[in-house]
Amino acid sequence: MNNADLIVSGGTLVTMDAKSRVIENGAIAIRDGFIAAIGDRADIESRHRARRTIDASGALVLPGLINGHAHAAMSLFRGFADDHSLDDWLQKYIFPAEAQNVTEDFVEWGTRLSMVEMIRGGITTYADMYYFEDAVARVTKEAGMRGILGETIVDFPAPDHRTPAEAFEYTQKFIDKWRNDSLITPAVAPHSIYTLSEANLQAAGALARRNGVPILIHIAEAPFETAQSRSRHGLSPVAYLSRIGFLGPDVVAAHCIWVDSADIAALGRFDVGSVHSPSSNMKLAAGVMPVVEMLAAGNRVGLATDGAASNNSQDIFDEMDLAAKLQKIARMDPRVLPAKQALEMATIGGARALHLENRIGSLEDGKRADLILVDTNGPHATPMYNVYSQLVYALKGSDVKTVVIDGKLVMEDRRMLTLNEEEILEKAHAYQRRVSDLHSVPVMTGPSRFL
Amino acid sequence: MNNADLIVSGGTLVTMDAKSRVIENGAIAIRDGFIAAIGDRADIESRHRARRTIDASGALVLPGLINGHAHAAMSLFRGFADDHSLDDWLQKYIFPAEAQNVTEDFVEWGTRLSMVEMIRGGITTYADMYYFEDAVARVTKEAGMRGILGETIVDFPAPDHRTPAEAFEYTQKFIDKWRNDSLITPAVAPHSIYTLSEANLQAAGALARRNGVPILIHIAEAPFETAQSRSRHGLSPVAYLSRIGFLGPDVVAAHCIWVDSADIAALGRFDVGSVHSPSSNMKLAAGVMPVVEMLAAGNRVGLATDGAASNNSQDIFDEMDLAAKLQKIARMDPRVLPAKQALEMATIGGARALHLENRIGSLEDGKRADLILVDTNGPHATPMYNVYSQLVYALKGSDVKTVVIDGKLVMEDRRMLTLNEEEILEKAHAYQRRVSDLHSVPVMTGPSRFL
Repeated sequence: MNNADLIVSGGTLVTMDAKSRVIENGAIAIRDGFIAAIGDRADIESRHRARRTIDASGALVLPGLINGHAHAAMSLFRGFADDHSLDDWLQKYIFPAEAQNVTEDFVEWGTRLSMVEMIRGGITTYADMYYFEDAVARVTKEAGMRGILGETIVDFPAPDHRTPAEAFEYTQKFIDKWRNDSLITPAVAPHSIYTLSEANLQAAGALARRNGVPILIHIAEAPFETAQSRSRHGLSPVAYLSRIGFLGPDVVAAHCIWVDSADIAALGRFDVGSVHSPSSNMKLAAGVMPVVEMLAAGNRVGLATDGAASNNSQDIFDEMDLAAKLQKIARMDPRVLPAKQALEMATIGGARALHLENRIGSLEDGKRADLILVDTNGPHATPMYNVYSQLVYALKGSDVKTVVIDGKLVMEDRRMLTLNEEEILEKAHAYQRRVSDLHSVPVMTGPSRFL
Repeated sequence: MNNADLIVSGGTLVTMDAKSRVIENGAIAIRDGFIAAIGDRADIESRHRARRTIDASGALVLPGLINGHAHAAMSLFRGFADDHSLDDWLQKYIFPAEAQNVTEDFVEWGTRLSMVEMIRGGITTYADMYYFEDAVARVTKEAGMRGILGETIVDFPAPDHRTPAEAFEYTQKFIDKWRNDSLITPAVAPHSIYTLSEANLQAAGALARRNGVPILIHIAEAPFETAQSRSRHGLSPVAYLSRIGFLGPDVVAAHCIWVDSADIAALGRFDVGSVHSPSSNMKLAAGVMPVVEMLAAGNRVGLATDGAASNNSQDIFDEMDLAAKLQKIARMDPRVLPAKQALEMATIGGARALHLENRIGSLEDGKRADLILVDTNGPHATPMYNVYSQLVYALKGSDVKTVVIDGKLVMEDRRMLTLNEEEILEKAHAYQRRVSDLHSVPVMTGPSRFL
């Protein structure tokens, strides 16, 4: 008999492994944060003895969902300024609100709020670009969540650094502090080609490569970015980044909407991970990422929520559903991006986009034990003819009942185990009052008063 | 003191009345199924004494959501055949499955299953087109839900009638039986211009007008319908229906995707209600309804889920969110269809589309008491700067906690009061096994076996 820390027993395992195995009445033995064994329940139970067993009967057991691009602390600006033009939204509302409100404390509580939301929806890994990222790393580690985290670098003064030089210095210290953590992967996060000079983009790339850490960046999100790049550099954003030596197998690019076939080939050649946020892209009218072509080219493509100020949910179930539907309507073909492919983008594909497919993204021996149990007993999820259809088109984030990250329970039967939800909601309400008071929020603020 | 049957007390009332009043710490007194009074809590409570009070503190109180187009019994085919071409989906999967499975018992249990899902998501009124519609009316009445229900009429043999003549006869009896019901509005439901002859379309219209009941029909859903109409009649579907005298202020038209400006004007002139199903339209790649132009023209426009075989959820929160996002991305303008307008489509606009705006769709004295309480305490719905943004972009169907229809509680704190959910889920599982056995379901049927 082998010892295990935890056995997840029963239920249907949707492994997302190379053979797309779906194991009915399966079991998973977990030891030291890793999946030690996975297979038929009787077989696993005959060979393993565990201190703790979780009954997954009647549930689907999946790899934890991967959110490839977030600004977690922005949950405190959720719905603060919707339905404006992208330019108004940023310049008139978001940037001023950030300048006046974003402190280390704000970032801690905003990030915790987002983690409650993300874990409740089955997200076990997220990539984040914001400010005070060391605080983000600290609270993420405390919550037991997996994060790929990068301090946003811009050429203008930000809430916690006045210059890019300060941001580079911050990032080096941040990397030194977190580089060997089991949950936190420190990253370098230059914001975009339109907020950074060529020299600073190259310096960011060099910093990442000196340290062997990932690079998080926005690429080709909005038409203005592409227009500006063509006028300044005579090149598309992707071609420009290729020319200056920025692209490589360590880059995770959010959005990648305005890319042509040469750009898609370049992203593939450099092994860049691309991350799709259909809710945000639709709500801000940014455009439609050519997901079908990118997947056909074999590129690494994941899913993401983007920040709560632009989405306004942080729910990968929503993004799977929308990714499939948006590609279908954009091409007038219901066959493209079928359910299974959408689920791949949220699991093993998302892991590939973050270049972490050897550690997470599927239920396999030797991978980190990040997994979720999804209840299938709701009326909205009955009957179930196909697990992939059900997961993408019918089940919701609210159906996730239990979440294990790195072998540890972080939510059990909807109870949060590592985050104090009540305190977090209180802090969020306090910040809401502060933000509402500071800014003449251009909309009905009524309900804030009774909270 | 006035007597009331029920007082809903506290919370923020989002009335959706002509002044868009949002009343904090409000109350609603309900008597004989009607809203007897609505206003400030202290004022209402000082003037009314009720047998029963519901505490709505911390919740948003809204008019019940209106689902303008459904095929409720098709919940039993949820996810049965996804990601196929529209033609394959219908001809190879849905029509054969209906021919072999749809009986009165199937319709009863499928409709009940959908009602559990709909009520859980805050839907209080739905319009339905299917077969055995008398059974649909009976179970809808039993559940205490409001329905505009029509037996589908087609030129080919259907599960419960061999000819359109039989369907007309069925419909006349159905109307006679239900015409004075407080919850059920019987309707005539000719399927579409591509499944009915001109004579039968006109006969359906005449039948409805003789009886003074609404007409439910699909119009201009798919490109093939428009192409066929132009080739056969030299006219768009709307222009053709106008020419044959079919359009009028009793028509509720599902989809209306392939309409030009003349069609939009005609729909407005005839006061037709149009109903938008963004999830279904995206998933089947049917097209994008020109909602912005139709609303600008003053047309009656509501929202709908369509059937669970094409969506696969029956959740108006999803449809509000998607309606707003789909218009934004289709026009590359984030300002169009703002949150409040999307919520209108689900409430007072949906009532207008069904020509029932004098009875339902807003919280006002004298309207039927159809209302829902939405919990705003979830991490995904915190903070809240704007009720409309929150309802459309952040809150979910699963946040609905209590539902009142026609003055009666049908769900309280998520407990279903008029439908036996456990029995309904058991029956749905039994039908799933039957359908899976009868058809070689072309997809992974694994999970059905452990249920």
